[in-house]
Amino acid sequence: METNPQYCPENIGFSTSLKVGRKAKPEGTIVNIEGVKIGGTEVVIIAGPCAVESREQLFETARAVRNGGAKILRGGAFKPRSSPYNFQGLGEEGLKLLGQIRKEIGLPVVTEVMDTRQVELVSAHANMLQIGSRNMQNYPLLKEVGMSRKPILLKRGMMATIEEFLLAAEYILNQGNDQVILCERGIRTFETSTRNTLDLSAVPMLKRLSHLPVIVDPSHGTGLRWMVPPMAKAAVAVGADGLIIEVHYKPEEAICDGHQSLDHDDFINLMTDLKKIAEAVNREISLPDPS
Amino acid sequence: METNPQYCPENIGFSTSLKVGRKAKPEGTIVNIEGVKIGGTEVVIIAGPCAVESREQLFETARAVRNGGAKILRGGAFKPRSSPYNFQGLGEEGLKLLGQIRKEIGLPVVTEVMDTRQVELVSAHANMLQIGSRNMQNYPLLKEVGMSRKPILLKRGMMATIEEFLLAAEYILNQGNDQVILCERGIRTFETSTRNTLDLSAVPMLKRLSHLPVIVDPSHGTGLRWMVPPMAKAAVAVGADGLIIEVHYKPEEAICDGHQSLDHDDFINLMTDLKKIAEAVNREISLPDPS
Amino acid sequence: METNPQYCPENIGFSTSLKVGRKAKPEGTIVNIEGVKIGGTEVVIIAGPCAVESREQLFETARAVRNGGAKILRGGAFKPRSSPYNFQGLGEEGLKLLGQIRKEIGLPVVTEVMDTRQVELVSAHANMLQIGSRNMQNYPLLKEVGMSRKPILLKRGMMATIEEFLLAAEYILNQGNDQVILCERGIRTFETSTRNTLDLSAVPMLKRLSHLPVIVDPSHGTGLRWMVPPMAKAAVAVGADGLIIEVHYKPEEAICDGHQSLDHDDFINLMTDLKKIAEAVNREISLPDPS
Amino acid sequence: METNPQYCPENIGFSTSLKVGRKAKPEGTIVNIEGVKIGGTEVVIIAGPCAVESREQLFETARAVRNGGAKILRGGAFKPRSSPYNFQGLGEEGLKLLGQIRKEIGLPVVTEVMDTRQVELVSAHANMLQIGSRNMQNYPLLKEVGMSRKPILLKRGMMATIEEFLLAAEYILNQGNDQVILCERGIRTFETSTRNTLDLSAVPMLKRLSHLPVIVDPSHGTGLRWMVPPMAKAAVAVGADGLIIEVHYKPEEAICDGHQSLDHDDFINLMTDLKKIAEAVNREISLPDPS
Repeated sequence: METNPQYCPENIGFSTSLKVGRKAKPEGTIVNIEGVKIGGTEVVIIAGPCAVESREQLFETARAVRNGGAKILRGGAFKPRSSPYNFQGLGEEGLKLLGQIRKEIGLPVVTEVMDTRQVELVSAHANMLQIGSRNMQNYPLLKEVGMSRKPILLKRGMMATIEEFLLAAEYILNQGNDQVILCERGIRTFETSTRNTLDLSAVPMLKRLSHLPVIVDPSHGTGLRWMVPPMAKAAVAVGADGLIIEVHYKPEEAICDGHQSLDHDDFINLMTDLKKIAEAVNREISLPDPS
Repeated sequence: METNPQYCPENIGFSTSLKVGRKAKPEGTIVNIEGVKIGGTEVVIIAGPCAVESREQLFETARAVRNGGAKILRGGAFKPRSSPYNFQGLGEEGLKLLGQIRKEIGLPVVTEVMDTRQVELVSAHANMLQIGSRNMQNYPLLKEVGMSRKPILLKRGMMATIEEFLLAAEYILNQGNDQVILCERGIRTFETSTRNTLDLSAVPMLKRLSHLPVIVDPSHGTGLRWMVPPMAKAAVAVGADGLIIEVHYKPEEAICDGHQSLDHDDFINLMTDLKKIAEAVNREISLPDPS
Repeated sequence: METNPQYCPENIGFSTSLKVGRKAKPEGTIVNIEGVKIGGTEVVIIAGPCAVESREQLFETARAVRNGGAKILRGGAFKPRSSPYNFQGLGEEGLKLLGQIRKEIGLPVVTEVMDTRQVELVSAHANMLQIGSRNMQNYPLLKEVGMSRKPILLKRGMMATIEEFLLAAEYILNQGNDQVILCERGIRTFETSTRNTLDLSAVPMLKRLSHLPVIVDPSHGTGLRWMVPPMAKAAVAVGADGLIIEVHYKPEEAICDGHQSLDHDDFINLMTDLKKIAEAVNREISLPDPS
Repeated sequence: METNPQYCPENIGFSTSLKVGRKAKPEGTIVNIEGVKIGGTEVVIIAGPCAVESREQLFETARAVRNGGAKILRGGAFKPRSSPYNFQGLGEEGLKLLGQIRKEIGLPVVTEVMDTRQVELVSAHANMLQIGSRNMQNYPLLKEVGMSRKPILLKRGMMATIEEFLLAAEYILNQGNDQVILCERGIRTFETSTRNTLDLSAVPMLKRLSHLPVIVDPSHGTGLRWMVPPMAKAAVAVGADGLIIEVHYKPEEAICDGHQSLDHDDFINLMTDLKKIAEAVNREISLPDPS
């Protein structure tokens, strides 16, 4: 008899009794963020800076990624940083800038919420709430956003199993909010040449086990600007419903994560390449009319 | 030239500029929990159930561990559970039971706080606040307990490096609270025969880099009742300033973590063994007069 | 100042002084296996059973994968198995069957060699020698195959860093053999829903650091038949020079790895899909004329 | 129902049907190396340099560790090194020096064998053969040493589960050689402040599952000289049957692993401390008469 305790494919049946389980909604969930639909044929690209730094920085990048084909803007106002001495984000000032993007640039906005006490405030300015990796098992926060009516972008914890990830999403659905997108963003392994190890096998696994849409973050998943394009292509090929990509108008001057941010030109070129891959797997990426 | 990117001993110098750094207080910090001092010659044992289940359960175990030589009681009222369908703790009712322990049994109490909004409530009943593994990088929570005047028991995240662990403690000290105890409780690795891999090398590493006391949780660190005694002995031998051990009056009936909880007799026997190890490394464990 | 000891992108400069380093041959190496070239525009597919079980099994699958577009046959005669009581392979009898494939079916053959004493024997029957994951740091074996004139397929150890992987290849080149192909086949992490975690970021990283061709094994990398197609597509999208895929004529009866083997029809369908991805990234997969 | 796929304590029953299983020999195996018995009451200390560098270096350290209480000398003649450009050991010349130790200094000797073709040669000079971490799953080598009549020191692979480790030992016992000692030497995890993560929980786990003696290598397990003493004490406290420690007469001049080697004085001081711990857990370490 062969044994392999490291590897238990039969365990993946655990999801069948969950609200997030594929069985509960075999046709799949489509999450609607102010008219942008994630989980359908279109592969949706979310892009923008790691952190909101200034009005100029935010709006220039917002326009650039919109023109490149992004459908949603990302940007952090409250930043979870390993050190208390690192930049912690602009806070409410950043939120207000984000709140103007939808009207002025036309893109819905996703931003992170870190504290149960801020869910209401962040909801007033953002169109989708992000739960970051470090808070994937912050259960009071999961319950709180589960009680909101906003779409939620839930990032996988850097050492969370597939099962724990789905159970974290279950906390949100269990409060009545089923507008949840799962995001693979790299796990922590022994390998140190990349910032994290982007686990693309999580995409087909999550889509098999759950009806929720799954997107990929190749920026945090690799930590290396030059590696974002090949991993983004792989993510579309493997079946992701979307990508979230860090873009900065001057990466070398970014306050955080500049080394993993694309500049505007890199982003525009990448979108053209991604469109070809999407079509090769019978998906779509709609690019703006270049005129 | 030999290379080893996996292993960067020179990196450990990062702590020298931190408030938690050994250099900031070479003689070491002693944390005082209602007169119980952690960080001195005495190796302090914290013991009690995973979760508060009932008055009978809590008080029986409190008496037993006190009589065995424990100096502080542990017990959870708010429980962070992977699944929303697992027991979430008795909440405020559990807190109130914990609040009676100090007066009636004579032991200070440590319990977990999971939400910034609960810090005040939990502080009203507990003598020390625990930040659990899943919240080690919940920065708003770290800041909030940093503003309280309670001693803090900070557990290492299951995926946290030594550096990230110390930076999490720095968030607390940076708010003015230096009564922080670090707790190694097992990290996540590829090995599946134990619940986590208890990283005892973290103890001498943390004590070299920081002035804060360091304790070990052999219960969560192994997940196996029979393995708690040998790992507890090893933790004392390696230089831990204390241990936190799960004890239940009827482990087979425990609502959570019964398989890793000692019963009362096991605990009392273990204390006698630990005393010998403590003396072999020039530390002390004071046991009550058996009469 | 931000710190991140886990992640040292500057370390990747270590390869510049190595024979395997990109700098030593900026244009890239093309490995030639009896006329099949790996490392050029064509994405080369290697396919076949985990182990040679019988003449019928081997030849039926060899014909099927050739007709599907595979250019090289894989098959194990000596099998490294975790337990001594698992099937260890047909040994020399299996080698002889493999030795007939090139003439009768027209495909070159790759098979594993595990022992320095067998290099000569295996070389007499195979067109390329495989060094398996468990032997990636078996230095006497690396030196021995380095002295042979056969092309070498070197699989990444399941817990080998990118640096260790390249240094293992360096042992082979240092003996005068530069016909080496690197194979990412999944690394060991905490995640247990898949057999290993297929690290596709290794492909662009290895290709940046080294001039050697890089292929991917989605069969061992996932351990799940249904996950092989999406991960194979992702591997082509990310820039792999080839794939090595387990195919069995009756997967449910396979002596080993049946649960991760494609059947003949699955393989043929996958090849059509892979061709589209290859073209979307400006590579080619040539399929046989269906007539 | 609670779930935890990461942690499968019931799986540990796999060993009951193995030759290495505790059930096959409940009283435990004592391995006899030229009269030195490992697996009994005595905790046996093996010490010596990483590599044999010269007669002077080897003999000075051999005398020092013997006088300090070591019962067996360690020293490498064939060294498995990550890079082909690192020192590969003195080879046969080193073996011959090792072969003189038993007669001249009175200590049996353990040294590593890396190649099936060298088993006979190494056996002619050494009293125990070591299989290193990188070769733990080199099955031809395991079979070859299984056919020898020498005691075998089998080191855990840095990525090997407890189950794989025991199955590797099973390869040796299955050839008729039951004189096998298991050695925990650190596993590879995400943590980079130490060279490896020394998994002391492996000691009670292995001793529960198997009848074979278990020793610990705190030198490779930590990679840091100052951390060897506390981890050595913890290893004795947790129940190890012995330790293997790197000692060099001039650590700062060592060709390899100098940063993790104790000097002679450190070693002698450590032995005194270890003796106290051994006694606290009802074991013994016999030190030479200081006169």
